[in-house]
Amino acid sequence: MIDAEKLRWMEKGFSFFDKLTEQEKNETAENAVEVCFQRGQSIHRAGEDCAGLMLVTSGQLRTYILSDDGREVTLYRLWKGDVCVLSASCVLSEVAFDVLIEAVEDTRVILLPLAYFRQLKEKNVYVELFTYRLATERFSDVMWSLQQILFMRADQRLAAFLWDEMARTGREELSYTHDQIARYMGSAREVVSRLLKYFSEEGIVKVSRGKILVTDRDKLKKFL
Amino acid sequence: MIDAEKLRWMEKGFSFFDKLTEQEKNETAENAVEVCFQRGQSIHRAGEDCAGLMLVTSGQLRTYILSDDGREVTLYRLWKGDVCVLSASCVLSEVAFDVLIEAVEDTRVILLPLAYFRQLKEKNVYVELFTYRLATERFSDVMWSLQQILFMRADQRLAAFLWDEMARTGREELSYTHDQIARYMGSAREVVSRLLKYFSEEGIVKVSRGKILVTDRDKLKKFL
Repeated sequence: MIDAEKLRWMEKGFSFFDKLTEQEKNETAENAVEVCFQRGQSIHRAGEDCAGLMLVTSGQLRTYILSDDGREVTLYRLWKGDVCVLSASCVLSEVAFDVLIEAVEDTRVILLPLAYFRQLKEKNVYVELFTYRLATERFSDVMWSLQQILFMRADQRLAAFLWDEMARTGREELSYTHDQIARYMGSAREVVSRLLKYFSEEGIVKVSRGKILVTDRDKLKKFL
Repeated sequence: MIDAEKLRWMEKGFSFFDKLTEQEKNETAENAVEVCFQRGQSIHRAGEDCAGLMLVTSGQLRTYILSDDGREVTLYRLWKGDVCVLSASCVLSEVAFDVLIEAVEDTRVILLPLAYFRQLKEKNVYVELFTYRLATERFSDVMWSLQQILFMRADQRLAAFLWDEMARTGREELSYTHDQIARYMGSAREVVSRLLKYFSEEGIVKVSRGKILVTDRDKLKKFL
Protein backbone atom coordinates (compact mmCIF):
# COMPACT_ATOMS: atom_id res chain seq x y z
CA MET A 1 0.00 0.00 0.00
CA ILE A 2 1.47 3.37 -0.97
CA ASP A 3 1.62 6.15 1.61
CA ALA A 4 -1.10 8.28 0.00
CA GLU A 5 -3.52 5.35 0.16
CA LYS A 6 -2.59 4.59 3.77
CA LEU A 7 -3.27 8.22 4.61
CA ARG A 8 -6.67 8.13 2.92
CA TRP A 9 -7.63 5.03 4.94
CA MET A 10 -6.55 6.66 8.18
CA GLU A 11 -8.34 9.95 7.50
CA LYS A 12 -11.54 7.98 7.01
CA GLY A 13 -11.14 5.29 9.69
CA PHE A 14 -9.53 7.30 12.49
CA SER A 15 -12.04 10.08 13.06
CA PHE A 16 -9.59 11.89 15.35
CA PHE A 17 -7.29 12.53 12.40
CA ASP A 18 -8.49 16.07 11.67
CA LYS A 19 -7.91 16.96 15.33
CA LEU A 20 -4.20 16.12 15.10
CA THR A 21 -1.53 18.77 14.64
CA GLU A 22 0.44 18.64 11.37
CA GLN A 23 3.36 17.12 13.25
CA GLU A 24 1.15 14.47 14.84
CA LYS A 25 -0.34 13.62 11.45
CA ASN A 26 3.12 13.08 9.99
CA GLU A 27 4.27 11.00 12.95
CA THR A 28 1.10 8.89 12.80
CA ALA A 29 1.61 8.23 9.10
CA GLU A 30 5.24 7.28 9.74
CA ASN A 31 4.40 4.94 12.61
CA ALA A 32 1.40 3.23 11.03
CA VAL A 33 2.29 -0.09 9.40
CA GLU A 34 0.38 -2.43 7.17
CA VAL A 35 0.10 -5.94 8.60
CA CYS A 36 -1.27 -9.07 6.94
CA PHE A 37 -2.79 -11.93 8.90
CA GLN A 38 -3.51 -15.36 7.50
CA ARG A 39 -6.88 -17.03 7.79
CA GLY A 40 -7.15 -18.56 11.25
CA GLN A 41 -4.20 -16.61 12.66
CA SER A 42 -4.42 -15.48 16.29
CA ILE A 43 -4.10 -11.70 16.64
CA HIS A 44 -4.68 -11.15 20.32
CA ARG A 45 -4.69 -13.58 23.23
CA ALA A 46 -5.71 -13.07 26.85
CA GLY A 47 -2.72 -12.29 29.04
CA GLU A 48 -0.31 -11.56 26.20
CA ASP A 49 0.98 -8.26 24.81
CA CYS A 50 -1.34 -6.07 22.75
CA ALA A 51 -0.33 -5.03 19.27
CA GLY A 52 -2.14 -1.68 19.14
CA LEU A 53 -5.03 -0.01 17.32
CA MET A 54 -6.01 -1.77 14.07
CA LEU A 55 -7.97 -0.43 11.12
CA VAL A 56 -9.25 -3.30 8.96
CA THR A 57 -8.68 -2.66 5.22
CA SER A 58 -9.76 -6.13 4.03
CA GLY A 59 -10.88 -9.46 5.45
CA GLN A 60 -12.55 -10.18 8.76
CA LEU A 61 -11.63 -10.25 12.45
CA ARG A 62 -13.54 -12.15 15.12
CA THR A 63 -13.47 -11.25 18.83
CA TYR A 64 -14.45 -14.04 21.21
CA ILE A 65 -14.13 -15.37 24.73
CA LEU A 66 -13.11 -18.84 25.82
CA SER A 67 -14.25 -20.86 28.83
CA ASP A 68 -11.91 -23.01 30.91
CA ASP A 69 -13.23 -26.11 29.17
CA GLY A 70 -12.62 -24.67 25.71
CA ARG A 71 -16.07 -23.36 24.78
CA GLU A 72 -15.95 -20.31 22.50
CA VAL A 73 -18.49 -17.50 22.39
CA THR A 74 -18.22 -14.91 19.60
CA LEU A 75 -18.73 -11.33 20.81
CA TYR A 76 -18.59 -9.51 17.48
CA ARG A 77 -16.89 -9.44 14.10
CA LEU A 78 -15.14 -6.57 12.31
CA TRP A 79 -14.90 -5.91 8.59
CA LYS A 80 -13.31 -3.46 6.17
CA GLY A 81 -13.38 0.07 7.59
CA ASP A 82 -13.90 -1.06 11.22
CA VAL A 83 -11.37 -0.25 13.92
CA CYS A 84 -10.32 -2.89 16.44
CA VAL A 85 -9.84 -1.29 19.85
CA LEU A 86 -9.50 -4.34 22.09
CA SER A 87 -6.20 -5.18 20.37
CA ALA A 88 -5.01 -2.02 22.20
CA SER A 89 -6.82 -2.81 25.46
CA CYS A 90 -3.57 -2.78 27.50
CA VAL A 91 -3.64 1.02 27.43
CA LEU A 92 -7.26 1.19 28.65
CA SER A 93 -7.29 0.67 32.41
CA GLU A 94 -11.11 0.47 32.35
CA VAL A 95 -11.00 -2.73 30.29
CA ALA A 96 -10.67 -5.38 32.97
CA PHE A 97 -11.52 -8.40 30.82
CA ASP A 98 -9.68 -10.58 28.36
CA VAL A 99 -10.75 -11.50 24.88
CA LEU A 100 -9.24 -13.36 21.95
CA ILE A 101 -9.12 -12.01 18.42
CA GLU A 102 -8.48 -14.05 15.28
CA ALA A 103 -8.48 -13.48 11.53
CA VAL A 104 -11.43 -15.37 10.03
CA GLU A 105 -10.19 -14.79 6.48
CA ASP A 106 -6.90 -13.48 5.14
CA THR A 107 -7.01 -10.00 6.62
CA ARG A 108 -5.06 -6.77 6.19
CA VAL A 109 -4.96 -4.00 8.75
CA ILE A 110 -3.27 -0.67 9.28
CA LEU A 111 -1.71 -0.95 12.72
CA LEU A 112 -0.86 1.94 15.04
CA PRO A 113 1.67 0.09 17.21
CA LEU A 114 0.95 0.15 20.93
CA ALA A 115 3.89 2.29 22.07
CA TYR A 116 3.10 5.04 19.59
CA PHE A 117 -0.66 4.80 20.13
CA ARG A 118 -0.22 5.07 23.90
CA GLN A 119 1.88 8.20 23.49
CA LEU A 120 -0.57 9.80 21.03
CA LYS A 121 -3.53 9.01 23.30
CA GLU A 122 -1.76 10.65 26.25
CA LYS A 123 -0.90 13.77 24.26
CA ASN A 124 -4.19 14.32 22.44
CA VAL A 125 -7.51 14.18 24.28
CA TYR A 126 -9.39 13.59 21.01
CA VAL A 127 -7.47 10.37 20.42
CA GLU A 128 -8.39 9.30 23.95
CA LEU A 129 -12.04 10.22 23.33
CA PHE A 130 -12.05 8.30 20.02
CA THR A 131 -10.76 5.22 21.82
CA TYR A 132 -13.43 5.22 24.52
CA ARG A 133 -16.23 6.01 22.07
CA LEU A 134 -15.11 3.02 20.07
CA ALA A 135 -15.05 0.86 23.18
CA THR A 136 -18.63 1.99 23.87
CA GLU A 137 -19.63 0.92 20.34
CA ARG A 138 -18.16 -2.51 21.02
CA PHE A 139 -20.13 -2.54 24.28
CA SER A 140 -23.25 -2.22 22.10
CA ASP A 141 -22.07 -5.06 19.86
CA VAL A 142 -21.54 -7.29 22.89
CA MET A 143 -24.97 -6.39 24.30
CA TRP A 144 -26.52 -7.43 21.01
CA SER A 145 -24.75 -10.81 21.12
CA LEU A 146 -25.59 -11.24 24.79
CA GLN A 147 -29.30 -10.74 24.15
CA GLN A 148 -29.15 -13.18 21.25
CA ILE A 149 -27.38 -15.82 23.30
CA LEU A 150 -29.57 -15.43 26.38
CA PHE A 151 -32.96 -14.77 24.90
CA MET A 152 -33.27 -15.90 21.28
CA ARG A 153 -34.19 -19.41 20.38
CA ALA A 154 -31.48 -21.28 18.49
CA ASP A 155 -33.57 -21.53 15.29
CA GLN A 156 -34.03 -17.75 15.26
CA ARG A 157 -30.34 -17.24 15.84
CA LEU A 158 -29.40 -19.54 12.97
CA ALA A 159 -31.92 -17.82 10.67
CA ALA A 160 -30.57 -14.40 11.71
CA PHE A 161 -27.01 -15.54 11.04
CA LEU A 162 -27.85 -16.84 7.54
CA TRP A 163 -29.87 -13.71 6.80
CA ASP A 164 -27.10 -11.34 7.87
CA GLU A 165 -24.50 -13.28 5.92
CA MET A 166 -26.63 -13.13 2.74
CA ALA A 167 -27.02 -9.38 3.21
CA ARG A 168 -23.31 -8.90 3.85
CA THR A 169 -21.98 -11.02 1.01
CA GLY A 170 -24.84 -10.42 -1.45
CA ARG A 171 -24.90 -14.16 -2.17
CA GLU A 172 -27.23 -17.05 -1.41
CA GLU A 173 -24.41 -19.57 -1.14
CA LEU A 174 -22.50 -19.28 2.14
CA SER A 175 -19.21 -21.02 2.86
CA TYR A 176 -19.27 -22.14 6.45
CA THR A 177 -18.88 -25.42 8.31
CA HIS A 178 -21.39 -26.31 11.02
CA ASP A 179 -18.62 -25.87 13.53
CA GLN A 180 -17.89 -22.32 12.39
CA ILE A 181 -21.56 -21.35 12.52
CA ALA A 182 -21.86 -22.81 16.02
CA ARG A 183 -18.97 -20.64 17.16
CA TYR A 184 -20.44 -17.47 15.63
CA MET A 185 -23.80 -18.23 17.22
CA GLY A 186 -22.37 -19.16 20.62
CA SER A 187 -24.05 -22.55 20.31
CA ALA A 188 -23.01 -26.21 19.99
CA ARG A 189 -22.18 -27.89 16.65
CA GLU A 190 -24.76 -30.60 17.30
CA VAL A 191 -27.49 -27.97 17.67
CA VAL A 192 -26.48 -26.29 14.39
CA SER A 193 -26.37 -29.60 12.51
CA ARG A 194 -29.80 -30.59 13.82
CA LEU A 195 -31.29 -27.20 12.86
CA LEU A 196 -29.71 -27.22 9.39
CA LYS A 197 -31.21 -30.67 8.86
CA TYR A 198 -34.59 -29.27 9.87
CA PHE A 199 -34.19 -26.16 7.64
CA SER A 200 -33.18 -28.47 4.82
CA GLU A 201 -36.24 -30.70 5.27
CA GLU A 202 -38.39 -27.55 5.21
CA GLY A 203 -36.85 -26.61 1.85
CA ILE A 204 -35.21 -23.46 3.25
CA VAL A 205 -31.59 -24.46 2.60
CA LYS A 206 -29.52 -27.04 0.72
CA VAL A 207 -26.56 -28.24 2.70
CA SER A 208 -23.36 -29.63 1.20
CA ARG A 209 -19.84 -30.04 2.54
CA GLY A 210 -18.73 -26.66 3.96
CA LYS A 211 -21.50 -24.84 2.08
CA ILE A 212 -25.07 -23.74 2.72
CA LEU A 213 -27.31 -22.59 -0.10
CA VAL A 214 -30.39 -20.60 0.92
CA THR A 215 -33.15 -21.74 -1.43
CA ASP A 216 -36.21 -20.05 0.13
CA ARG A 217 -35.59 -16.55 1.48
CA ASP A 218 -39.24 -15.93 2.36
CA LYS A 219 -39.50 -19.03 4.49
CA LEU A 220 -36.18 -18.17 6.18
CA LYS A 221 -37.45 -14.66 6.93
CA LYS A 222 -40.35 -16.06 8.95
CA PHE A 223 -37.88 -17.27 11.56
CA LEU A 224 -36.48 -13.79 12.18
CA MET B 1 -28.36 17.76 51.52
CA ILE B 2 -26.75 21.18 51.86
CA ASP B 3 -24.96 22.69 48.87
CA ALA B 4 -21.46 22.31 50.29
CA GLU B 5 -22.07 18.58 50.80
CA LYS B 6 -23.49 18.20 47.28
CA LEU B 7 -20.40 19.92 45.93
CA ARG B 8 -18.08 17.61 47.85
CA TRP B 9 -19.90 14.55 46.43
CA MET B 10 -19.63 15.90 42.89
CA GLU B 11 -15.95 16.83 43.17
CA LYS B 12 -15.27 13.23 44.22
CA GLY B 13 -17.72 11.38 41.96
CA PHE B 14 -17.49 13.43 38.77
CA SER B 15 -13.79 13.28 37.97
CA PHE B 16 -14.24 15.90 35.24
CA PHE B 17 -15.08 18.50 37.89
CA ASP B 18 -11.60 20.02 38.13
CA LYS B 19 -11.56 20.44 34.33
CA LEU B 20 -14.64 22.70 34.44
CA THR B 21 -14.41 26.47 34.29
CA GLU B 22 -15.58 28.37 37.38
CA GLN B 23 -18.79 29.27 35.56
CA GLU B 24 -19.42 25.63 34.56
CA LYS B 25 -18.81 24.53 38.16
CA ASN B 26 -21.41 26.98 39.42
CA GLU B 27 -23.92 26.00 36.75
CA THR B 28 -23.37 22.31 37.47
CA ALA B 29 -23.94 22.85 41.19
CA GLU B 30 -27.10 24.83 40.44
CA ASN B 31 -28.51 22.23 38.04
CA ALA B 32 -27.67 19.14 40.09
CA VAL B 33 -30.62 17.92 42.15
CA GLU B 34 -30.92 15.32 44.87
CA VAL B 35 -33.45 12.63 44.02
CA CYS B 36 -34.76 9.83 46.25
CA PHE B 37 -36.03 6.53 44.89
CA GLN B 38 -38.00 4.00 46.85
CA ARG B 39 -37.03 0.35 47.10
CA GLY B 40 -38.25 -1.39 43.94
CA GLN B 41 -38.85 1.85 42.01
CA SER B 42 -38.09 1.82 38.30
CA ILE B 43 -35.52 4.47 37.33
CA HIS B 44 -35.00 3.81 33.66
CA ARG B 45 -37.02 1.78 31.18
CA ALA B 46 -36.20 0.77 27.62
CA GLY B 47 -37.77 3.17 25.12
CA GLU B 48 -38.62 5.90 27.62
CA ASP B 49 -36.91 9.21 28.35
CA CYS B 50 -33.60 9.20 30.22
CA ALA B 51 -33.25 11.18 33.43
CA GLY B 52 -29.55 12.04 33.14
CA LEU B 53 -26.25 11.25 34.86
CA MET B 54 -26.67 9.90 38.42
CA LEU B 55 -24.17 9.79 41.26
CA VAL B 56 -25.31 7.31 43.93
CA THR B 57 -24.95 8.74 47.46
CA SER B 58 -26.72 5.89 49.27
CA GLY B 59 -28.59 2.67 48.47
CA GLN B 60 -28.21 0.41 45.45
CA LEU B 61 -29.15 0.48 41.76
CA ARG B 62 -29.48 -2.60 39.57
CA THR B 63 -29.12 -2.55 35.78
CA TYR B 64 -30.70 -5.47 33.96
CA ILE B 65 -32.16 -6.67 30.67
CA LEU B 66 -35.50 -8.33 30.09
CA SER B 67 -36.45 -10.98 27.52
CA ASP B 68 -39.76 -10.96 25.65
CA ASP B 69 -41.05 -13.68 27.95
CA GLY B 70 -40.13 -11.73 31.09
CA ARG B 71 -36.82 -13.31 32.04
CA GLU B 72 -34.46 -10.86 33.79
CA VAL B 73 -30.67 -10.90 33.64
CA THR B 74 -28.73 -8.58 35.93
CA LEU B 75 -25.82 -6.83 34.22
CA TYR B 76 -24.31 -5.00 37.20
CA ARG B 77 -25.17 -3.17 40.38
CA LEU B 78 -24.06 0.28 41.56
CA TRP B 79 -23.47 1.47 45.10
CA LYS B 80 -22.53 4.64 47.00
CA GLY B 81 -19.97 6.65 45.03
CA ASP B 82 -20.71 4.96 41.68
CA VAL B 83 -21.97 6.94 38.70
CA CYS B 84 -24.82 5.59 36.57
CA VAL B 85 -24.17 6.45 32.92
CA LEU B 86 -26.85 4.36 31.17
CA SER B 87 -29.53 6.55 32.77
CA ALA B 88 -28.12 9.18 30.39
CA SER B 89 -27.74 6.82 27.42
CA CYS B 90 -30.01 8.93 25.17
CA VAL B 91 -27.15 11.35 24.64
CA LEU B 92 -24.70 8.57 23.67
CA SER B 93 -25.32 7.62 20.06
CA GLU B 94 -22.93 4.65 20.43
CA VAL B 95 -25.23 2.99 22.96
CA ALA B 96 -27.62 1.08 20.72
CA PHE B 97 -29.14 -1.16 23.37
CA ASP B 98 -31.82 -0.81 26.01
CA VAL B 99 -31.54 -1.66 29.67
CA LEU B 100 -33.73 -1.27 32.73
CA ILE B 101 -32.56 0.25 35.98
CA GLU B 102 -34.25 -0.08 39.36
CA ALA B 103 -33.58 0.89 42.96
CA VAL B 104 -32.93 -2.31 44.94
CA GLU B 105 -33.06 -0.45 48.25
CA ASP B 106 -34.19 3.07 49.12
CA THR B 107 -31.62 5.01 47.13
CA ARG B 108 -30.48 8.63 46.91
CA VAL B 109 -28.66 10.08 43.94
CA ILE B 110 -27.34 13.43 42.77
CA LEU B 111 -28.82 13.85 39.31
CA LEU B 112 -27.40 15.98 36.50
CA PRO B 113 -30.61 16.32 34.48
CA LEU B 114 -30.36 15.22 30.85
CA ALA B 115 -30.82 18.63 29.18
CA TYR B 116 -28.06 20.22 31.25
CA PHE B 117 -25.79 17.19 31.02
CA ARG B 118 -26.16 17.10 27.23
CA GLN B 119 -25.18 20.75 27.00
CA LEU B 120 -22.19 20.36 29.34
CA LYS B 121 -20.98 17.29 27.44
CA GLU B 122 -21.13 19.19 24.15
CA LYS B 123 -19.24 22.17 25.57
CA ASN B 124 -16.52 20.38 27.50
CA VAL B 125 -14.54 17.52 25.94
CA TYR B 126 -13.49 16.26 29.39
CA VAL B 127 -17.12 15.69 30.33
CA GLU B 128 -17.56 13.73 27.10
CA LEU B 129 -14.41 11.72 27.83
CA PHE B 130 -15.59 11.00 31.39
CA THR B 131 -18.88 9.67 30.02
CA TYR B 132 -17.29 7.25 27.55
CA ARG B 133 -14.66 6.09 30.04
CA LEU B 134 -17.49 5.30 32.42
CA ALA B 135 -19.36 3.43 29.66
CA THR B 136 -16.18 1.41 29.07
CA GLU B 137 -16.06 0.54 32.79
CA ARG B 138 -19.64 -0.71 32.55
CA PHE B 139 -18.59 -2.73 29.50
CA SER B 140 -16.13 -4.48 31.82
CA ASP B 141 -18.86 -5.10 34.39
CA VAL B 142 -21.08 -6.64 31.73
CA MET B 143 -18.25 -8.84 30.44
CA TRP B 144 -17.74 -10.14 33.96
CA SER B 145 -21.44 -11.02 34.26
CA LEU B 146 -21.46 -12.53 30.79
CA GLN B 147 -18.57 -14.85 31.61
CA GLN B 148 -20.27 -15.85 34.85
CA ILE B 149 -23.57 -16.58 33.13
CA LEU B 150 -22.05 -18.45 30.21
CA PHE B 151 -19.19 -20.31 31.79
CA MET B 152 -19.54 -20.68 35.56
CA ARG B 153 -21.46 -23.50 37.10
CA ALA B 154 -24.50 -22.39 39.09
CA ASP B 155 -23.04 -23.59 42.42
CA GLN B 156 -19.91 -21.50 41.83
CA ARG B 157 -22.04 -18.49 40.94
CA LEU B 158 -24.13 -18.81 44.08
CA ALA B 159 -21.00 -19.20 46.22
CA ALA B 160 -19.44 -16.14 44.51
CA PHE B 161 -22.59 -14.12 45.12
CA LEU B 162 -22.70 -15.00 48.84
CA TRP B 163 -18.97 -14.37 49.19
CA ASP B 164 -19.14 -10.94 47.52
CA GLU B 165 -22.14 -9.94 49.59
CA MET B 166 -20.36 -10.91 52.83
CA ALA B 167 -17.35 -8.85 51.77
CA ARG B 168 -19.51 -5.88 50.81
CA THR B 169 -21.74 -5.79 53.89
CA GLY B 170 -19.20 -7.12 56.39
CA ARG B 171 -21.89 -9.46 57.72
CA GLU B 172 -22.52 -13.20 57.64
CA GLU B 173 -26.31 -12.78 57.61
CA LEU B 174 -27.62 -11.72 54.21
CA SER B 175 -31.16 -10.48 53.55
CA TYR B 176 -32.24 -11.86 50.21
CA THR B 177 -35.09 -13.99 48.93
CA HIS B 178 -34.32 -16.89 46.59
CA ASP B 179 -36.03 -14.95 43.84
CA GLN B 180 -33.77 -11.91 44.31
CA ILE B 181 -30.62 -14.05 44.27
CA ALA B 182 -31.80 -15.79 41.10
CA ARG B 183 -32.21 -12.42 39.39
CA TYR B 184 -28.77 -11.22 40.47
CA MET B 185 -27.22 -14.47 39.27
CA GLY B 186 -29.13 -14.57 36.00
CA SER B 187 -30.50 -17.97 37.00
CA ALA B 188 -33.88 -19.49 37.88
CA ARG B 189 -35.41 -19.42 41.37
CA GLU B 190 -35.78 -23.21 41.38
CA VAL B 191 -32.03 -23.59 40.76
CA VAL B 192 -31.18 -21.23 43.63
CA SER B 193 -33.58 -22.99 46.02
CA ARG B 194 -32.15 -26.38 45.13
CA LEU B 195 -28.57 -25.15 45.61
CA LEU B 196 -29.34 -23.42 48.91
CA LYS B 197 -30.88 -26.67 50.13
CA TYR B 198 -27.66 -28.46 49.14
CA PHE B 199 -25.44 -25.77 50.78
CA SER B 200 -27.60 -26.05 53.86
CA GLU B 201 -27.27 -29.87 54.02
CA GLU B 202 -23.50 -29.41 53.70
CA GLY B 203 -23.55 -27.10 56.73
CA ILE B 204 -22.40 -24.08 54.71
CA VAL B 205 -25.49 -21.92 55.27
CA LYS B 206 -28.61 -21.72 57.41
CA VAL B 207 -31.66 -20.62 55.44
CA SER B 208 -34.69 -18.88 56.95
CA ARG B 209 -37.43 -16.72 55.45
CA GLY B 210 -35.76 -13.97 53.41
CA LYS B 211 -32.41 -14.55 55.13
CA ILE B 212 -29.29 -16.61 54.57
CA LEU B 213 -26.70 -17.06 57.31
CA VAL B 214 -23.27 -18.24 56.18
CA THR B 215 -22.10 -20.66 58.86
CA ASP B 216 -18.95 -22.10 57.26
CA ARG B 217 -16.87 -19.60 55.28
CA ASP B 218 -14.04 -22.07 54.58
CA LYS B 219 -16.37 -24.61 53.03
CA LEU B 220 -18.05 -21.87 50.98
CA LYS B 221 -14.66 -20.67 49.74
CA LYS B 222 -13.95 -24.08 48.20
CA PHE B 223 -16.72 -23.43 45.67
CA LEU B 224 -15.11 -20.23 44.39
